[in-house]
Amino acid sequence: MEERIRVTLPSGEMIKNWYNVKADLPFKLDPPLNPKTGKIITPKELSAIFCPSIIEQEATDERYIKIPEEVLREYAVFRPTPLIRASFLEEYLGTPAKIYYKYEGASPTGSHKTNTALAQAYYNARDSVEQLVTETGAGQWGSALTYAGVKFGLKVRVFMVRVSYNQKPMRKHMMKLFGGDVLESPSDETESGLRFLKDDLKHPGSLGIAISEAIETVLKSGKSKYALGSVLDHVLLHQTVIGLELKKQLKLINETPTVIIGCHGGGSNFGGTILPFVLEKLSGQEIRFLACEPESCPTLTEGEYRYDYGDSSGFTPLLKMYTLGKDFVPPKIHAGGLRYHGSAPIIAKLLEEKLIEAENFPQEETFQAARLFSKVEGIIPAPETAHAIAGVIREALKAKTMKKEEVIVFTLSGHGLLDLSAYS
Amino acid sequence: MEERIRVTLPSGEMIKNWYNVKADLPFKLDPPLNPKTGKIITPKELSAIFCPSIIEQEATDERYIKIPEEVLREYAVFRPTPLIRASFLEEYLGTPAKIYYKYEGASPTGSHKTNTALAQAYYNARDSVEQLVTETGAGQWGSALTYAGVKFGLKVRVFMVRVSYNQKPMRKHMMKLFGGDVLESPSDETESGLRFLKDDLKHPGSLGIAISEAIETVLKSGKSKYALGSVLDHVLLHQTVIGLELKKQLKLINETPTVIIGCHGGGSNFGGTILPFVLEKLSGQEIRFLACEPESCPTLTEGEYRYDYGDSSGFTPLLKMYTLGKDFVPPKIHAGGLRYHGSAPIIAKLLEEKLIEAENFPQEETFQAARLFSKVEGIIPAPETAHAIAGVIREALKAKTMKKEEVIVFTLSGHGLLDLSAYS
Repeated sequence: MEERIRVTLPSGEMIKNWYNVKADLPFKLDPPLNPKTGKIITPKELSAIFCPSIIEQEATDERYIKIPEEVLREYAVFRPTPLIRASFLEEYLGTPAKIYYKYEGASPTGSHKTNTALAQAYYNARDSVEQLVTETGAGQWGSALTYAGVKFGLKVRVFMVRVSYNQKPMRKHMMKLFGGDVLESPSDETESGLRFLKDDLKHPGSLGIAISEAIETVLKSGKSKYALGSVLDHVLLHQTVIGLELKKQLKLINETPTVIIGCHGGGSNFGGTILPFVLEKLSGQEIRFLACEPESCPTLTEGEYRYDYGDSSGFTPLLKMYTLGKDFVPPKIHAGGLRYHGSAPIIAKLLEEKLIEAENFPQEETFQAARLFSKVEGIIPAPETAHAIAGVIREALKAKTMKKEEVIVFTLSGHGLLDLSAYS
Repeated sequence: MEERIRVTLPSGEMIKNWYNVKADLPFKLDPPLNPKTGKIITPKELSAIFCPSIIEQEATDERYIKIPEEVLREYAVFRPTPLIRASFLEEYLGTPAKIYYKYEGASPTGSHKTNTALAQAYYNARDSVEQLVTETGAGQWGSALTYAGVKFGLKVRVFMVRVSYNQKPMRKHMMKLFGGDVLESPSDETESGLRFLKDDLKHPGSLGIAISEAIETVLKSGKSKYALGSVLDHVLLHQTVIGLELKKQLKLINETPTVIIGCHGGGSNFGGTILPFVLEKLSGQEIRFLACEPESCPTLTEGEYRYDYGDSSGFTPLLKMYTLGKDFVPPKIHAGGLRYHGSAPIIAKLLEEKLIEAENFPQEETFQAARLFSKVEGIIPAPETAHAIAGVIREALKAKTMKKEEVIVFTLSGHGLLDLSAYS
């Protein structure tokens, strides 16, 4: 038996800066537009919903952004997350490919979302914000932000998509444990919510609607700001801590990845993982990046690349992205975190430039992948993450057919312990 | 800010043998007795419920028992578990004590139970057993055994204490994900179960009753054996992997513990943690061992030291232990894993010999401890484990009053992600 490989990082090797891929891209991203005027949005206009530090970070062209000491201290609770060789999965598949996973489920709230939640809570607290308002799908983002709120002394209000609120009561319990104020969305507390409730009192909700409710709440209140768990450039920036650690860990064991895989909802764990490797690809290294999304919410594979709103009511800036349209209400699949009509503008641009690929996966294939992984590797993945695992399995079997020694790396973005009912 | 300390082990330092404290104790343990004859039980009599390898291990006097390669391979999925300095908790309490915890929640099913489950499943599979039957309280043992069953190709049937079955549906989902066959106890499938249902159709159950149901099932069937998640010597033996790793990890950072703390239900995580340190205490080192139990089920602090049955119907061997009496039905507290009337004979003997101490904790103090720990350390502990944390906090505050630089170490035996509803 080969020894199991599990790589951490020596303490001197901890990541101290986030990486801003925009400094290295040979093309410009299309800027966000004001949803009312259609003109490039100004920092002042953004200040209605975001604090100054976040606005600055969203726009910066600096290559490296120093991670504040206060955030590093909180990262140290769970970072570096381990890089683990999935040797049992390799053996089960009989593939010549090596498979590694970066385990973000090791974070306090069980997913990668904590990486940006801590950063956003820190900056908002420093800018004297009293309350953060947000939306959550499966609840991973909501629980990460309530946890971060406790750490930096901020109140947190969360609009949780109704279908997930009902399917996943444990996430609600976690948010409440951390003192969060959790509402079912659509709710009767906002005009956006009421508009959807009018048509259907039991409307299942969507991330787009919940974002509208959160932003509307912020616009109407004085001391609240909005926090988003994916999509925007600063969120992907914070998540690069994943890819930066991964890069060092792979170097420690002398591995060069040939394909990096992540699940894709808004794009933050996928982006955080691959962005630190994009420059290598631009420099000619043979490496592929594969985004895995649900067949039922095929944003990257079947969406249009155009400007669209990030929410259903049209409050957010217009973003240039792949989109299924702001009114898209996805089916009630279990991977609530992937039920989003849009995508991160950075990821969309990389797809448009053919620097990344995307595939979609039917629900049954992803559940099979998750069950297999649980049994052989001993970690129950979140339903979102299961899409990445399904992608890994497709690639590993392809490598088997082609007799190719691929080095497949993926981010296991979260564990599924709070989603166990979905497996029944 | 001091850097966060998180200690693993170099791969060459992995534990390869379990440690049998009985080889080093200066006194003999009172042997188990046949429940019918009252005479010392023979291996042949035990073979009705246990496989030969387990019976041999229960009785051995060897100091070190080699961990089979097949089990080491499965341990490598999650072992070594990290030793983490609880620097945030220290800071919050303002204590001069250093606090470290050994994090067993990092195991596939979220608790230390996996350590013995994998060993027991391996030995039973090797001895051609087809099905293991067991009981579970909070569900940690049941999920560990169903996971281990998948790994070694055994069917697993679990009688789950009704109060936990209803309070903790997620554990049931996890057992089913791993192919387990889960019944509410008392059930109508055994005479033991029916006896209690006759008095009360919604009887909340107890570990004692569930053990009776499991053993009765085994006695009536041909190819099944029984598996116990705590109490017996071989279970504590398997759990010494915790204390053995801990010892190496503490040595790596040059720390000498002054007090080691664990929660106590049947005694397996507590025993597994402290047994490798008992010889030091016998040799004169100043070290205390503190077992923490619920006020509502005060086995060690208020029980009697005498022979008693391990179950409610009197099927198990008579064990010399601290006991509240086999008919004790504990209140419906959330720490289902600690609702047991008895204790491990090894732990009981150590208490009788004053080598260890025990304290009990009211439910509210333990929940406060768990909430505090979740917020400052970012890990939500299982309700069982919360008793150890309450003990740690008492000791850390005592150290503060006395201005004493204690080195407090405890085992965080499991996470509480599947018990979140208990915190609401």
